[in-house]
Amino acid sequence: MKITCLKENLSKALSLTSKIIPLKPSLPILGNILIQTEKGMLKISSTNLELGIICKIGAKITEEGSITVPAKLFTEYISTIPDDKIEITVNDLDVEIISGNYNAKIKGLSASDFPLIPLIDKESIIKINPKILSEALPYITFSVSIDESRPVLNGVLFDIYPDKIKLVSTDSYRLSEKIIELKTNTKENLSVVIPQKTVQELLRMLTETEEEVEISLTEEQILFRTSNIELTSRLIEGKYPDYEQIIPESWQTKIVLNKDEFISAIKTVSLFARETAGNIKLETSKEGKIIVKSMATQIGEAQSMVDIGIEGEEIEIAFNAKYLLDVLSVLKSKKVVLLLNGSLNPAVVKGEEEKDYNHIIMPLRI
Amino acid sequence: MKITCLKENLSKALSLTSKIIPLKPSLPILGNILIQTEKGMLKISSTNLELGIICKIGAKITEEGSITVPAKLFTEYISTIPDDKIEITVNDLDVEIISGNYNAKIKGLSASDFPLIPLIDKESIIKINPKILSEALPYITFSVSIDESRPVLNGVLFDIYPDKIKLVSTDSYRLSEKIIELKTNTKENLSVVIPQKTVQELLRMLTETEEEVEISLTEEQILFRTSNIELTSRLIEGKYPDYEQIIPESWQTKIVLNKDEFISAIKTVSLFARETAGNIKLETSKEGKIIVKSMATQIGEAQSMVDIGIEGEEIEIAFNAKYLLDVLSVLKSKKVVLLLNGSLNPAVVKGEEEKDYNHIIMPLRI
Repeated sequence: MKITCLKENLSKALSLTSKIIPLKPSLPILGNILIQTEKGMLKISSTNLELGIICKIGAKITEEGSITVPAKLFTEYISTIPDDKIEITVNDLDVEIISGNYNAKIKGLSASDFPLIPLIDKESIIKINPKILSEALPYITFSVSIDESRPVLNGVLFDIYPDKIKLVSTDSYRLSEKIIELKTNTKENLSVVIPQKTVQELLRMLTETEEEVEISLTEEQILFRTSNIELTSRLIEGKYPDYEQIIPESWQTKIVLNKDEFISAIKTVSLFARETAGNIKLETSKEGKIIVKSMATQIGEAQSMVDIGIEGEEIEIAFNAKYLLDVLSVLKSKKVVLLLNGSLNPAVVKGEEEKDYNHIIMPLRI
Repeated sequence: MKITCLKENLSKALSLTSKIIPLKPSLPILGNILIQTEKGMLKISSTNLELGIICKIGAKITEEGSITVPAKLFTEYISTIPDDKIEITVNDLDVEIISGNYNAKIKGLSASDFPLIPLIDKESIIKINPKILSEALPYITFSVSIDESRPVLNGVLFDIYPDKIKLVSTDSYRLSEKIIELKTNTKENLSVVIPQKTVQELLRMLTETEEEVEISLTEEQILFRTSNIELTSRLIEGKYPDYEQIIPESWQTKIVLNKDEFISAIKTVSLFARETAGNIKLETSKEGKIIVKSMATQIGEAQSMVDIGIEGEEIEIAFNAKYLLDVLSVLKSKKVVLLLNGSLNPAVVKGEEEKDYNHIIMPLRI
């Protein structure tokens, strides 16, 4: 194998593929990435057995071939060399890299030992603008469960309908639902759960492309594809809980307030809530204000007031401060809406202008 | 006690004083900072028993007094409140903080239990522009020893003469010496060693002031003082090694090369030097180049070439890559000078335009 390519292209492909490779692979080959020539392109592939990424870049191919190289060393080396043009020559298992005044020889492993990335050769079910998907996912990812006792909650639900996709996550204390209106290629409802790790890599992929992303499904795998990048992941098995019944349909109290003022009040008060595991109280006052307060603890206590608009009943309700801050930090609206049904029932937090997003938090006992 | 002050001033004083306070103090009072009224000012003091910092800020004092409060909580609370004006009222041990719509009560401890910061009331021996000192210290701090078996090397030597100060550090593998020309207030040579931790805090102090800094000494303590900030530290006892004899007076090989090209070549090659503990080799070639190369290892090998100017003998010499990168990253000159005396004797690394700085590195065996 002998190829010439540009540092910039190779670096970009390596940064996209190498991140999924484990630092301490169980076998040396699992710490490597595969480079191979294919139809006049250079193909870079990585896999951690659950998730595989393939990137194709332009290259001048003098001699066809394939080899695997240690991902970390190769990625770091390519990123530190100063010149633009890189020549890679493979002799047996020796990979020689020459660029300007720099040259290195890296010991590779045979491409034939590299694990296969499953090939999904089905028509796509969704075609989506990468910007729409990359803006939607952060509304969802922060409330994915990290508790491994219920694997189905360790991912993001893609609930696919003919005319929309619903992205959902829950850790059973809170739930996020984001709706994307979009014509899909299915007549019936399809539900798949995508591992959180895959979603992180997908986000990285989405920022690297402006092309429409095509999504294809099999029973056990999902493929996200553009002309140059393919991300293939296993799906999480199991039935996702019936989340729609949790989203309240009515409210007894509606509160509207400035998001930044609310965040500041919560942050300040939560400094005093460490002993109570982040437990803080919200209390409406007759003067059109909400009082955010900590419980009295060993170290002291704090309270902050924020102006609000209120409809319906006065209320006193407790939340975990971190959960409130998590959702408030992803909202883009200047104003936040709280929809409450007494102090024990699930509360809805929304951005005033973000109609297609619902976040539900379970209150704490007062 | 009752005072009113501006958030900005209080925050700055707290960020300067609170950093030295241990996260897990052995006694609760050692996790606190002292706030007290004095001559119309608010005085904030912190100490970790080795190092004490006092900051004075303007305040409107309604009632004199003093109290100590938990440093971390108080600093974080003050930094998160949004309003400019802060009112602090102490009732017994309760510290009430009111600012706009925010209020908090923190439990304090009596000021009388706070450890005394030693008072140094001597005439200053040095008056120095803070910018000169803050620019000089980074040349020295990176080569302070972290090996606790020789405490005298765990600090920076201030070697004070009537007409200059020499700042020196060594970890016995390398040595830095920076000379500041300056009239001092001593007729004889005075040598003191300042703990590395103190130097870090001193650097923070120096960036907060534009006033001349006065330095005073006792047998065991050093004081750095401006009108609003006082930093008092113990000195490290013991005799500093006679470093001047290590600095070579002549050379057999003089190499001049571009600093950024040298850094890039070392970084790239050192990726292959992990198995050999960072050991890399430099080898001059007849064509006016230096070859930076790794030893051949399990993972492969690399070499990079850099153009040089050379006087004297050709050479082959080995160094720890990290040591070279450490000194190269603090140099400001575009060109670097290496003065060598064969492959086994101490090497001098200098910036071409940084005449007042010497760095010596012991080579490794080839």
